[in-house]
Amino acid sequence: MQVAALVRSLHPAEIAELLESLPPAQRAIVWDLVDEEDEGDVLLELNDEVRASILERMDAEDVVAATEGMSLDDLADFVADLPEAVTRQVLRSLSEQDKERLQKVLAYPEDSAGGLMDPDTISVRPDVSLEVVLRYLRILGEIPDRTDAIWVVDRNDRFLGTLYLARLVSREPQATVSQVMDRELKPIPYDRSASEVAREFSNRDLLSAPVVDAEGRLIGQITIDDVVDVIEDQAEHDFLSMAGLDEEDDMFAPVITSAQRRTIWLAVNLATAFVAAAVVGLFEATLQQVVVLAVLMPVVASMGGIAGSQTLTLMIRGMAMGRVQGANARWLLRKEVAVGILNGLAWALVVAGITVAFFGTWEVGLVIAAAIAINLVVAALAGFAVPLLLKKLRIDPALAGSVVLTTITDVVGFMSFLGLGTLFLT
Amino acid sequence: MQVAALVRSLHPAEIAELLESLPPAQRAIVWDLVDEEDEGDVLLELNDEVRASILERMDAEDVVAATEGMSLDDLADFVADLPEAVTRQVLRSLSEQDKERLQKVLAYPEDSAGGLMDPDTISVRPDVSLEVVLRYLRILGEIPDRTDAIWVVDRNDRFLGTLYLARLVSREPQATVSQVMDRELKPIPYDRSASEVAREFSNRDLLSAPVVDAEGRLIGQITIDDVVDVIEDQAEHDFLSMAGLDEEDDMFAPVITSAQRRTIWLAVNLATAFVAAAVVGLFEATLQQVVVLAVLMPVVASMGGIAGSQTLTLMIRGMAMGRVQGANARWLLRKEVAVGILNGLAWALVVAGITVAFFGTWEVGLVIAAAIAINLVVAALAGFAVPLLLKKLRIDPALAGSVVLTTITDVVGFMSFLGLGTLFLT
Repeated sequence: MQVAALVRSLHPAEIAELLESLPPAQRAIVWDLVDEEDEGDVLLELNDEVRASILERMDAEDVVAATEGMSLDDLADFVADLPEAVTRQVLRSLSEQDKERLQKVLAYPEDSAGGLMDPDTISVRPDVSLEVVLRYLRILGEIPDRTDAIWVVDRNDRFLGTLYLARLVSREPQATVSQVMDRELKPIPYDRSASEVAREFSNRDLLSAPVVDAEGRLIGQITIDDVVDVIEDQAEHDFLSMAGLDEEDDMFAPVITSAQRRTIWLAVNLATAFVAAAVVGLFEATLQQVVVLAVLMPVVASMGGIAGSQTLTLMIRGMAMGRVQGANARWLLRKEVAVGILNGLAWALVVAGITVAFFGTWEVGLVIAAAIAINLVVAALAGFAVPLLLKKLRIDPALAGSVVLTTITDVVGFMSFLGLGTLFLT
Repeated sequence: MQVAALVRSLHPAEIAELLESLPPAQRAIVWDLVDEEDEGDVLLELNDEVRASILERMDAEDVVAATEGMSLDDLADFVADLPEAVTRQVLRSLSEQDKERLQKVLAYPEDSAGGLMDPDTISVRPDVSLEVVLRYLRILGEIPDRTDAIWVVDRNDRFLGTLYLARLVSREPQATVSQVMDRELKPIPYDRSASEVAREFSNRDLLSAPVVDAEGRLIGQITIDDVVDVIEDQAEHDFLSMAGLDEEDDMFAPVITSAQRRTIWLAVNLATAFVAAAVVGLFEATLQQVVVLAVLMPVVASMGGIAGSQTLTLMIRGMAMGRVQGANARWLLRKEVAVGILNGLAWALVVAGITVAFFGTWEVGLVIAAAIAINLVVAALAGFAVPLLLKKLRIDPALAGSVVLTTITDVVGFMSFLGLGTLFLT
């Protein structure tokens, strides 16, 4: 009973966090304790996979009941993940008008301004006084608590400007809307990508922004809470992708599911590892003669891997932030290669020194120095070029960049080290 | 002249992005084109390193001029990075009252609610009518455009509730503040950490929140734009740290600076690579006899590295999100080990098969299968334990986790593969 009271005292988002942090058995128990009227809000806050696992256990009526009171943009996201039959039941529960508006939102891609927006907006005409606006809002009675602005449109619904509530409450009531409205905030075209919308919100410190169609007519608004979700998802995507994981993964997914998913990445890695092994295999005879090469070859490969992934990480981040463009790409390439040469020479000397000191052979020292210098320069080139190339091929650089890069640095590392070893030591 | 007009048409945040995307020489040219009255806003938007490079070129008077019109929380962040002498000049330019308030903000740690907050707030008493509030706000005349709420306090400044502007404009003017104010939004204690504040904003879809001192007195407010910066910085930190980079790094830093910074990470890696090489060195005799072990050893090490970094990445993300706690840690450990065993066995079979097929030796096949199974289970254990251990030692798991982990999987991989090879093949 005490647990029930605790769950009831939490905010829906906190219940969602709790559910995401629980193994499946406890998750079901806690879900049963959630207030019926909170169920919809909690479902909205859950990540896709946990949400799906809970939806599976609900019957259709409960799902329909949970959708009550959702705003249209939330409902659109929610419906996208429901089974066909339940979606039809949800649609049937809506009024004709809401159904039509929902279908409009669903028609836009999820990761565009149109997909992010809420079609419910409040708009006023430019020629009325603030007093009239206030009277109109009092008649409406209910406007969402976290509203910071309403929109000014002409008689054809074309967007003209922004009326901040801050100005509405602090300017003289006789002033007209057009006198106090802001004309600087540019409306967002419906087809702008979600990540561009996020960057604009973040750069311009926006709380909400109007969305317009191709003719400049107001069709909805985007609020910062949806944008924060976009920013968090994007960061999570880049972070997890580099280990071949998916941002919608449930930490507490069943063992079999997790093992299957991760095994794909292990398979890709195995294929590339065998490519590297094949390169080593070319030099079997050399290795048998100069066994110290086998001892030192992991050093050459791993130094290249680290140097390359530094450049790669900077590039992936820079590209995600829109900071790498044609104009500065050549400057960056020159810089990264220069860093590679500098670090390559420095570490070639260090490694050569250690090799001579521990293995007492200056011939091997020279060979490993040359191999490290070569590998660090190639690593810089690859760290720069691989993400750009993958993007051209429409492959996510965050997902595939690291595997491609380490394959290159492994192959180049083994090839140059064992190749030079064969030439000069046998 | 056309470039100057272009720069002037940009928003300060866009100018900042442009500056961050430019090599140093062009950066100086563009900076000279920035409108004097925009300089402060642009400086605020720049990352620390680019900002420092520009501040270096400005004389003290220009810096002081740029601080004019900054809000106190922005000014506090800004002043923290200035040279001592310039700070003193900025302080001298402030009114006594502002100076005192600025020093209060500076007294809180930068990454706490007190450090994030803006001491400028608007507050009203609970017993007045909305009409009176509106009259009061009209007398104030200027309140910031993106205000969504003002705060309700008692005569001792103790926080009582939130008056959303949305309710102020939509409810009857005769109603009192206490009738329409929101009592659900809990104030944020001044000592709460910035990342907890960010999670709360994101979970509860807040646009602004009041900050209170230990006695519950209102001392400032935090707005979502500052929180978005925290979220972005945190994501960037985790992402870049895993490659040993720093989030404040300038992509266009001079070659020498970049090379020096990255070389530290290469040094750490070299030390661990030589540890792995030393392990390989133990088995020189074996390698000379069974050279195919040298060919295949990178495969064992790299499969362990990938499997381990998947677990590690999930753990780092889960810990950053506050999702890994004592209660579920054991469940997670069991799960990760089970995934390790399952994938270990599956890939042991595959690799054994490939080895028998290509090298025609079932003895080596058995040895590599055993080594891979061992390494994948150890990788799961290490991926789980290393970040928790590092956190206990107060070392950032995002920064050091990957190096520690791959050292473990390299050493265990080489040790088990070459050790078993020595036992059974020589």
